[in-house]
Amino acid sequence: MNSAIISIGDELLIGQVINTNASYLSAKLLEIGIPVEKIITLPDDEKEILNGFKSVFPKYDVTIVTGGLGPTHDDITKTCIAKYFKSKLVIDEKVLRHVRLIFKRRRMPMPETNNEQAMIPAIAAALPNTGTAPGILIDKSGKVFCALPGVPREMVHIMESSLLPYLVKKYKTRKDRRVIIHRTLHTIGISESLLYEKAGNINEIEINKKTSEVKLAFLPSNYETRLRVLVTAIDIKTAQKELNSAIEKLKSRVGKYIYSYDESPLPKAIGGILRKKKLTLSVAESCTGGLIASKITDIPGSSDYFLEGIISYSNEAKIKILDVKEETLKAYGAVSKQTAIEMAEGARKRSGADIGISTTGIAGPAGASKNKPVGLVWIGYSDKNISFAKDFYFTKDRLRNKEVMSKMALEILRRKLLSITIDN
Amino acid sequence: MNSAIISIGDELLIGQVINTNASYLSAKLLEIGIPVEKIITLPDDEKEILNGFKSVFPKYDVTIVTGGLGPTHDDITKTCIAKYFKSKLVIDEKVLRHVRLIFKRRRMPMPETNNEQAMIPAIAAALPNTGTAPGILIDKSGKVFCALPGVPREMVHIMESSLLPYLVKKYKTRKDRRVIIHRTLHTIGISESLLYEKAGNINEIEINKKTSEVKLAFLPSNYETRLRVLVTAIDIKTAQKELNSAIEKLKSRVGKYIYSYDESPLPKAIGGILRKKKLTLSVAESCTGGLIASKITDIPGSSDYFLEGIISYSNEAKIKILDVKEETLKAYGAVSKQTAIEMAEGARKRSGADIGISTTGIAGPAGASKNKPVGLVWIGYSDKNISFAKDFYFTKDRLRNKEVMSKMALEILRRKLLSITIDN
Repeated sequence: MNSAIISIGDELLIGQVINTNASYLSAKLLEIGIPVEKIITLPDDEKEILNGFKSVFPKYDVTIVTGGLGPTHDDITKTCIAKYFKSKLVIDEKVLRHVRLIFKRRRMPMPETNNEQAMIPAIAAALPNTGTAPGILIDKSGKVFCALPGVPREMVHIMESSLLPYLVKKYKTRKDRRVIIHRTLHTIGISESLLYEKAGNINEIEINKKTSEVKLAFLPSNYETRLRVLVTAIDIKTAQKELNSAIEKLKSRVGKYIYSYDESPLPKAIGGILRKKKLTLSVAESCTGGLIASKITDIPGSSDYFLEGIISYSNEAKIKILDVKEETLKAYGAVSKQTAIEMAEGARKRSGADIGISTTGIAGPAGASKNKPVGLVWIGYSDKNISFAKDFYFTKDRLRNKEVMSKMALEILRRKLLSITIDN
Repeated sequence: MNSAIISIGDELLIGQVINTNASYLSAKLLEIGIPVEKIITLPDDEKEILNGFKSVFPKYDVTIVTGGLGPTHDDITKTCIAKYFKSKLVIDEKVLRHVRLIFKRRRMPMPETNNEQAMIPAIAAALPNTGTAPGILIDKSGKVFCALPGVPREMVHIMESSLLPYLVKKYKTRKDRRVIIHRTLHTIGISESLLYEKAGNINEIEINKKTSEVKLAFLPSNYETRLRVLVTAIDIKTAQKELNSAIEKLKSRVGKYIYSYDESPLPKAIGGILRKKKLTLSVAESCTGGLIASKITDIPGSSDYFLEGIISYSNEAKIKILDVKEETLKAYGAVSKQTAIEMAEGARKRSGADIGISTTGIAGPAGASKNKPVGLVWIGYSDKNISFAKDFYFTKDRLRNKEVMSKMALEILRRKLLSITIDN
């Protein structure tokens, strides 16, 4: 079984937009055993698009086209599909109602051009979108052709809610379909090489070479290392068994560094622990500028345990809102162990939360001094029994620093909550 | 003049690696007037690669291949090139010396497999690399074929130090070489279709069809719409003139919606205005949970104008830190015009900032009531002369809501600072 992707849009050919859609689609199609064997990127040009359809559709089980479904003049994918399949464009009433509803919900008048969004080739079925452009599905001579919008969020929505289930059902009985599954575990606060030493050799994790294959990959990025376990097997039962077995081995070896077994982010893991332990949290941020609070509040229901965040960019705010002592700031400076501790204590006491965490550091590019380089951060922690702070030295890059300092503060919180030592 | 890119590697087809090389190459080739008209991604498979070469090389002035030049078993690009051009692989002594030197510098023994790195087709010239795999350049029948390593850093090095200068020199006198430049303007708070209606037809922007062509594209994502103006002209002077002229027309038609003419983000535009006007800002966030503050503090030097952020998730924090009246919360609820206004006023007065902005809304998935759906946000603004709040209705998705609510709050601030009406 195989598939191909045709990505349409001048923006992809002038280097303005990176083709992340193709990567996403490739990964998803692999998961259901329909690997992508070719990706073609074409301009918003009718002749090129028609040639592309001609060269791809007859050769692959599944062809997925992305882009060019919008309401403006440069969106020509739909008319090309109609021409290629010799099928007229007709109004789909259901889509039209949906498009009208979108504008109604936003309390905005619907521009005329949006009527065209509801037209699809007569031969096709419309796949519901959250946006105005529906997906277009054509199932012909045992092959599937599907056009999806180029907007990544909408493309993902249609893929997951409509197209993937459709493909899985259609090709259920194909014997040449291999089951490929994978799981990625997330670790933080440990180097790739140390993790590699502790996790051990891939061969110790491989289990049954005859019916399946297990591959372990170390994927480092921004002070996190992901562990990807990929299993290819003859059936889903074997694949699941091998995957679980490999994950159990990793858990026993490096479990304490793993904050997520299911791609869920660190703040979700922390939210789960806080909720279970019935604890509340407040944060005081300087160099991370609200990013920790934003990460925490990304999680639905975080209002159950998150009380408040104070972004004390100025010394005055540190003193007035967080009750940091003026003498502390004078004696040690804003970026110091003492200030971090008092900020965490202040956040906790002010709000009445069980726990306070804080960051004070130098995100860069300016603000460094001889003993306090760009990338230095003091992370503070305080509960009713203990207050402490720990320093880390990260990069020269402001945005990267904000990101990794925030994550490190959350990881310190996670380890403290689970009584895991903070040093490796 | 035109070109095509062939990207080789299984990692691109299983969704593990995003094809950033193709974007980089496209942008670079466009700059020298050799636009990319097709990108094909192929597996590490000899038959597929040879078919790819056959379908591309004869049709384009320039063909660039990336990937598959490494020393391991799955790197087969070089042997495919030799086969396609019917040219034997021979040792290039200069490359061999370079590869030996690399291992000597690393104080490592050179594995045998690396001898092969010094072999190139007899018909080709080697382009020096910092790594072990040289670029391979073939100039035949007026067309250029070039293979580059897949490692981005090495690919960029060879492109900039060898291939680009070579192409510029070779095609200097080609009369059909066009200069192509583009600029992208960013708008927010207006739908793609309404923007399209107001910006007008592309034909009204085109100016002189004989010596140049101007293309306008609408690129929507998350309530923003980018306007890309792309100009093709016979020389750079004409191109610049036409580009400026088109941008001026857009500015006069939809200028008030454009927050960026140079790809810089909204908080940077706002930071520039605040600094120029010598104004300071504080924020009070409920549903956006720190994201506005985090966006503002992403900008280096934001401490010049950003005083503090209060993330008042609880009603208590709204009352105690922001001085929101208990009666207001009781009478209208936390998500209301009145609360938004009092939060903005509170943020401003508490910190002594010139301006306060606030958000209170329902990010979802929970928290909605009959008259207050998920996606509703009240955005508050306050300065010494005026306080107001405005409501918007966004999506069902929490993270998208946080993102777009934050952007909308920043856009309201921008418009107010520039005395632009807030309703479209």
